Amino acid sequence: MATPSVHHRESFRGFNPAAGRPTAPTYHAATTGEVASAGESAWTAFRAGTRDNQRAAFLESIASNLDRDADAILAVAREETALPEARLRGELARTTHTLRMFASLLRDGSWVEAVIDRGDPSRTPLPKPDLRRMLVPLGPVAVFGASNFPLAYGVAGGDTASALAAGCPVLVKGHSAHPGTGEAIAARISEAVHAHALPRGLFQYLPAGGARDLTVGEELVTHPRVRAVGFTGSVAGGKALVRLANARAEPIPVFAEMGSVNPVFVLPAAIAARGTAIAQFLAASATASGGQMCTCPGLIFVPEPADAFVQALREAFASMPPVIMLTPRIAQSYRRRLADVAGAPGAWVLAGDPRVGTDSTGPVIASPVLAVVNLREFLAAGTLREECFGPSTIVVRCTNADEFLEAAALLEGSLTATVHADADDHARACGLLAALADRAGRLIVNGVPTGVEVAGAMVHSGPFPACSRPDSTAVGPWAIRRWCRPVCFQNTPQALLPEALHDANPLGIVRVEDGRVVLPAR
Amino acid sequence: MATPSVHHRESFRGFNPAAGRPTAPTYHAATTGEVASAGESAWTAFRAGTRDNQRAAFLESIASNLDRDADAILAVAREETALPEARLRGELARTTHTLRMFASLLRDGSWVEAVIDRGDPSRTPLPKPDLRRMLVPLGPVAVFGASNFPLAYGVAGGDTASALAAGCPVLVKGHSAHPGTGEAIAARISEAVHAHALPRGLFQYLPAGGARDLTVGEELVTHPRVRAVGFTGSVAGGKALVRLANARAEPIPVFAEMGSVNPVFVLPAAIAARGTAIAQFLAASATASGGQMCTCPGLIFVPEPADAFVQALREAFASMPPVIMLTPRIAQSYRRRLADVAGAPGAWVLAGDPRVGTDSTGPVIASPVLAVVNLREFLAAGTLREECFGPSTIVVRCTNADEFLEAAALLEGSLTATVHADADDHARACGLLAALADRAGRLIVNGVPTGVEVAGAMVHSGPFPACSRPDSTAVGPWAIRRWCRPVCFQNTPQALLPEALHDANPLGIVRVEDGRVVLPAR
Repeated sequence: MATPSVHHRESFRGFNPAAGRPTAPTYHAATTGEVASAGESAWTAFRAGTRDNQRAAFLESIASNLDRDADAILAVAREETALPEARLRGELARTTHTLRMFASLLRDGSWVEAVIDRGDPSRTPLPKPDLRRMLVPLGPVAVFGASNFPLAYGVAGGDTASALAAGCPVLVKGHSAHPGTGEAIAARISEAVHAHALPRGLFQYLPAGGARDLTVGEELVTHPRVRAVGFTGSVAGGKALVRLANARAEPIPVFAEMGSVNPVFVLPAAIAARGTAIAQFLAASATASGGQMCTCPGLIFVPEPADAFVQALREAFASMPPVIMLTPRIAQSYRRRLADVAGAPGAWVLAGDPRVGTDSTGPVIASPVLAVVNLREFLAAGTLREECFGPSTIVVRCTNADEFLEAAALLEGSLTATVHADADDHARACGLLAALADRAGRLIVNGVPTGVEVAGAMVHSGPFPACSRPDSTAVGPWAIRRWCRPVCFQNTPQALLPEALHDANPLGIVRVEDGRVVLPAR
Repeated sequence: MATPSVHHRESFRGFNPAAGRPTAPTYHAATTGEVASAGESAWTAFRAGTRDNQRAAFLESIASNLDRDADAILAVAREETALPEARLRGELARTTHTLRMFASLLRDGSWVEAVIDRGDPSRTPLPKPDLRRMLVPLGPVAVFGASNFPLAYGVAGGDTASALAAGCPVLVKGHSAHPGTGEAIAARISEAVHAHALPRGLFQYLPAGGARDLTVGEELVTHPRVRAVGFTGSVAGGKALVRLANARAEPIPVFAEMGSVNPVFVLPAAIAARGTAIAQFLAASATASGGQMCTCPGLIFVPEPADAFVQALREAFASMPPVIMLTPRIAQSYRRRLADVAGAPGAWVLAGDPRVGTDSTGPVIASPVLAVVNLREFLAAGTLREECFGPSTIVVRCTNADEFLEAAALLEGSLTATVHADADDHARACGLLAALADRAGRLIVNGVPTGVEVAGAMVHSGPFPACSRPDSTAVGPWAIRRWCRPVCFQNTPQALLPEALHDANPLGIVRVEDGRVVLPAR
């Protein structure tokens, strides 16, 4: 294939998965020249700088614009994703909540993690220097949104909101699965940029699709002005971006949220007391939004006797109709993974049909599928440990709960791990949670992993392949930390220091001073 | 060359740079089998776990052992490094201070960054979950010490101390430049492991040298049980480890501190008022410990008229005798880099002789060298922007201080950047510091970059190539953060939670609860 010229404008269309056909509008992918100049504009905006309260007002305006135009945005999103109205409305509320949360973080100001160690010129043998540390933004950030959360992990989603909050200009690579939704949201952000007279380069949306679907992203990650990357998607996609970012002359961090099996362990007393209820609860979680959530439970470990539990799960799955999947590609991968699962020695499909759906045109459907395997066969078959993205789960039958520790130690990294435990299970649950803390970013007791609360204590990340940076979180106020680095000012006169580090604490922020946390008088 | 067998034991000797000949003892490099089993022992120790106060007592014992045996350790270090007695004694004091600092961090307990968001079962439409977050250790850490700080960045240096503090077992790759020093320190750590009846795998020293100098390190970084790497050394070495770590099935983080030019900018009023004093101050900093410090100032930008300033620098350098370098290899690299500098178009050597020293046997000497270049030629010659590790510095003459911003924007990342500014320079210094904050981890006003205070506000890192992880610090209590990741517990009964997250705050630590910092009653 010939390399397109710098000015070649690729056109493409969206897709309606419920109808199984392209949507009406034609979209135009950003050209190589446009990506290059977008990076420069972002840099210019970064160097110009913005103040915390300016950015707070900006984020609030984005949220208001999205609220105001919710109906129009949701109509496009519904057509492009086939996600139900209520789910999309909830997701939009989560998006605007996140934007407002970062605005309030900025108005508070303490997010810069100011630390002050005052000097002592009389110290011997050497004077003690005055040292003051705070976070500064990294620079322009490239954001790759998710297919499965077109709003909350999309153009105005958590990555964009947290990067803008940090003071990093954002370059969004448009997702080809929902170009209309992306464009609709981008327009509301650009409107806010304009309303606040902010630099144009603070936010830029780069449509991508057709032959330019991959290359727009590659150009962004390798652009010399881009300083960090946020990504939500497949393991293969995330790994490719990490490789590109590491190969740069100046490597940059990639915060990639990728694949997660989200294991669940049901302990003996819990399964005996409420096995059926747990099974129903987990079936709903595994198939929520067509099983297309990063935290859907993909593996359920149960001790014998488990017949009743498995039967309850089977009934729940058997009663579910086929679901509409987000894209033909996701449905295709799902069927391919189900074939691997069904073909693994010792694995059995108990409910659903892995072959439902076709690769040709028509509605993009797939079947909720429940599979079962014994622990020995599970451990022998590597393929069962990997995520199967879609409405399926695998029950792993163990002789007893003592085998859980062995299984936990061999799991890939996940976003979450769940334990169902009653009081009589506590002794065992303690060791299991400790082992699972090594394999997941969030541990849930007696619940389901789906539903990611936006809160300060949330950790939405986990060991590889769940995340390329398990030391971070993609959800909650602390997500801002990803786009920053600390800078220390030594013996710097007050007049030359950022306000956050002034002696008088004019911003009234929480600081650590001479080793002690100092709260502002409020 | 044939691959050595798993049990091949390579022998090697140290080197006395002042005498220019090998030291007496023969050392034996760890075999491939020993590295493999060391990784497993470390994993066993990690899973066994330790409590904060156990590790605090352990770190204090290491410090006491080192203090007790200071004379013996320093005698070996002196022979292997030729660093002066006072410098090494100061470095040992810094090492034990750092160990005790981490012990006190553990006794305080607040380092786990506990965050609690209490739930609300009555919230609609969905109950609000109870979420509690804290830091947990990553697992076994491989440490590669520095050639230039055999104690403070060595076997019991900042990386080891902070990793042990976090609860991570440490595997130290012995440095072939000072095998006797490494062994002497390792013995004092192992003594403390034994005294506290801690798992043997908590600390392991793996001697490396001869044909096994590189391979021991490679085996450590690719060992499946190793979860993170700390490295201090060259850009090429650090990049090689990052590559290995990223190519693993489960990639791991590498905190590599590498090369840094540490630029200095002298503003007009400062140079006019006290140019000579600044020049003398910088000459001493650039050549301290033979210029073999990561923070030695390698570039000095000055505005015209700068003749007096340059003359003062020239006199300072011309008066210095040749220095003893740490190793023949460092001296060789220094001469090679000096040849590049001297050969760059427009660059002139003003003092010292780049050719001093030989590649054959004899004392490992090198000459302090001062070079000068105009800004235009500096910007044209990429080689002048890279670190020249050794007792040299380059003065970059600018037409005026307006050119400083252009120069600052084009610099590679550094650990530090320094500005000399008097009151009349402040308007200009402000913009310059903002630009330099993008290129360095620590900004110094009216001082020298050498001398890295161990303090909470210290940032010892910087943009690539200074550090592979500019979001971290290698010095100060916050260095512990490198070896941890956050874990969130959702709806977890008190009995199953770590103590740090119990409602009653039994550890009495600083926490963020429901969005507010809560200080313990003390």
